[in-house]
Amino acid sequence: MIEPRILKGFRDFLPSAEIERRVLLEKVEKSFRSFGFVPIDTPALEYAEILLGKGGGETEKQIYRFTDNGGRDVALRFDLTVPFARFLAEHRGELSLPFKRYHIAKVWRGENTQRGRYREFTQCDFDIVGSDTAAADFEILLMIRHTLKSIDAGDVTIRLNHRGLFNRFLGRIGVSDKSAEILRTVDKIAKIGREATLEQLEALTGAEKARSILDYIRPRDSFEETLAAITAAAGGPCAESERLALIRRFMADTGCADSFTLDPSITRGLDYYTGVVYETFLNELPAIGSVCSGGRYDDLAGLYSKEKLSGVGSSIGLDRLIAALESLGRLKGETRYAQVAVACIREADGGLAQALGQKLREAGITCEVFPDEKKLTQQYIVAEKKGIPWMIIPSDGGSGSLTLRNLIKRENREGLALDGVIAALLEGEK
Amino acid sequence: MIEPRILKGFRDFLPSAEIERRVLLEKVEKSFRSFGFVPIDTPALEYAEILLGKGGGETEKQIYRFTDNGGRDVALRFDLTVPFARFLAEHRGELSLPFKRYHIAKVWRGENTQRGRYREFTQCDFDIVGSDTAAADFEILLMIRHTLKSIDAGDVTIRLNHRGLFNRFLGRIGVSDKSAEILRTVDKIAKIGREATLEQLEALTGAEKARSILDYIRPRDSFEETLAAITAAAGGPCAESERLALIRRFMADTGCADSFTLDPSITRGLDYYTGVVYETFLNELPAIGSVCSGGRYDDLAGLYSKEKLSGVGSSIGLDRLIAALESLGRLKGETRYAQVAVACIREADGGLAQALGQKLREAGITCEVFPDEKKLTQQYIVAEKKGIPWMIIPSDGGSGSLTLRNLIKRENREGLALDGVIAALLEGEK
Repeated sequence: MIEPRILKGFRDFLPSAEIERRVLLEKVEKSFRSFGFVPIDTPALEYAEILLGKGGGETEKQIYRFTDNGGRDVALRFDLTVPFARFLAEHRGELSLPFKRYHIAKVWRGENTQRGRYREFTQCDFDIVGSDTAAADFEILLMIRHTLKSIDAGDVTIRLNHRGLFNRFLGRIGVSDKSAEILRTVDKIAKIGREATLEQLEALTGAEKARSILDYIRPRDSFEETLAAITAAAGGPCAESERLALIRRFMADTGCADSFTLDPSITRGLDYYTGVVYETFLNELPAIGSVCSGGRYDDLAGLYSKEKLSGVGSSIGLDRLIAALESLGRLKGETRYAQVAVACIREADGGLAQALGQKLREAGITCEVFPDEKKLTQQYIVAEKKGIPWMIIPSDGGSGSLTLRNLIKRENREGLALDGVIAALLEGEK
Repeated sequence: MIEPRILKGFRDFLPSAEIERRVLLEKVEKSFRSFGFVPIDTPALEYAEILLGKGGGETEKQIYRFTDNGGRDVALRFDLTVPFARFLAEHRGELSLPFKRYHIAKVWRGENTQRGRYREFTQCDFDIVGSDTAAADFEILLMIRHTLKSIDAGDVTIRLNHRGLFNRFLGRIGVSDKSAEILRTVDKIAKIGREATLEQLEALTGAEKARSILDYIRPRDSFEETLAAITAAAGGPCAESERLALIRRFMADTGCADSFTLDPSITRGLDYYTGVVYETFLNELPAIGSVCSGGRYDDLAGLYSKEKLSGVGSSIGLDRLIAALESLGRLKGETRYAQVAVACIREADGGLAQALGQKLREAGITCEVFPDEKKLTQQYIVAEKKGIPWMIIPSDGGSGSLTLRNLIKRENREGLALDGVIAALLEGEK
């Protein structure tokens, strides 16, 4: 006998957990679709060369990479962004720009599981490609807010910044050559604190410039004041500051300015972003960290194509979001789809029980027909364990009158015709 | 620059193909749920030992197997049945029997792609575990029929057989020891023809017994006549023949007997089946082969558990089904979710356009807001390419009256208020 076990960092989803995920993902997809976004899918397995691109220390260590039976160097995707870049280059001629797509799928990373991370997890990415406009930037921000509201995550604060403006400022103080390291250092300020950040910046740029960077990333009292301060620090009005001002106006036009702050310390560590960047926090549970982050990149498919494609997008971390909703008590705890179970009185009447089931389904009622002739009390217990609230007990094998049992209140209504049962069930679901 | 390409046998799904798959899968899931089935999920990657079990020539050659960074011998799942068996053994204490589950997920096989096979494909499995009853057997058959009707696949013929009865017959003629080879040979009769089958059977059992096997698998004029003939050949009434008779009665009780035939030549090659087995053919396109097959196994989780769990289930081959629906012209060819596009007249009015979009979404209308200030005719072309049937052209940046353009008829209605636009769109969707 083989011991039944799964790999560390991987998970089985039992029905209650899987239904929860589906309820959530269906709402997320509904939100994406309401903005006209369309889904795509790409292979789980790709050429390692495609996924690793320029290569990168962390990615290379974490990726599941192997040689297949045909001698190809292949790997499991570790995110949905790199396959999307390859997809764009490969199918450019078949797509109409601006292309607004979403992709919900599993990705794999051989991460250290001690930090509570999983090695297989679901990402929900959404991007607009081919429109370098404030309208596209803003639409992604609006979608984040709309989507999180639609899953009952409460009010959110989206912290916004512009990497291009930050880079202008760094150019002005003469440290453009260290831009990537500076942005990565600033990105960690929430984790490592102001002092440690200052120390690291000093090592990179010297004391005076480090202090001026720390001053740059300090949020002021309002979006407008912060924008004025960083615009001045970056050398005055420019395309990047105008972009932020326009996005700010769009927030006011749509009545959702309260959900946004301008936070110059947000940089996102990944180095492909070139425009706006943002992180999203739940007002009721900010400590859990950003549940949805992203930004604009001006040449996403550059590794695979000569055509420059500008894109802006975001990614929802499903596991973190579910953990947050659970802490907030916002998960409904659905464990079943069946509204009612049909009891089995005599196995030979299984056909009549299924005929009853068919009529219920035609009336829009989901039902589970029990196949085993067991004591009624045992059947009640199974239905209760499955979370099914009602049970129909047929008489005369299904041709006679019906008893409807409320399994929560443990009350029976006897002598009903099918119409009466259907009416009671439709009423009970309200 | 890296050439953008994907692995042979793997596929990208562009929005039109992906939407088609989702429309179909949503109907399939709705059907499964209407019978009270619940979803589960398991890891894509498992210990190779778990997936290979007893080992098996074909599987071993086709499986994607490698050593991970932690030195573990792992593999990608090649079906959903083996992970389900492991799942049952591992979570037995958390499940209420009978357990009715479905699982829709990708699987990977390094098959020969020359035969038009894919190396990554989606399976839709549904099973009832823990009820060895005619009612459970029949429910799976009814679900196959219900699900295929729900996706507009037309009338179906489900060919049913009972491997237990076949084995009784083989015992009676004294060839039980060759049962597995005989069943596998018979399984190929539709492919290799009667003559070649007879030859192979003769090599296994000698001429006389081969002829008697060929006579056993010959369907008679009706379910009843076939059942009488194979029951007699197997030595008279027994539990297996009674099971078939009861299933037959259930078909009549639910008014769906027309969809079923008893076909003693159906054996399913896989050797874990022990009870009923079946294959499903579309009446309008039988040549495409079975689109949904399955059967009963009396000890599915036996490799991983001492507890005997009897199960009955089935699997839909999504790719074959989509190919069939395409040939039959039953695919709707949906390429978008947006019902309407909002044109961009001035980029600076992007916020007002999004505010309009919000009001449409609140009215239940999905809409795509165009972010780029381009000539209207260009925007019409993009919307048409995306398959969006309507466009709203705002005046005064969105605060004034609206023009609604029917992109199919190329007609404009001018001077509308938002209410008028919403009414026209809701009317237009009918």
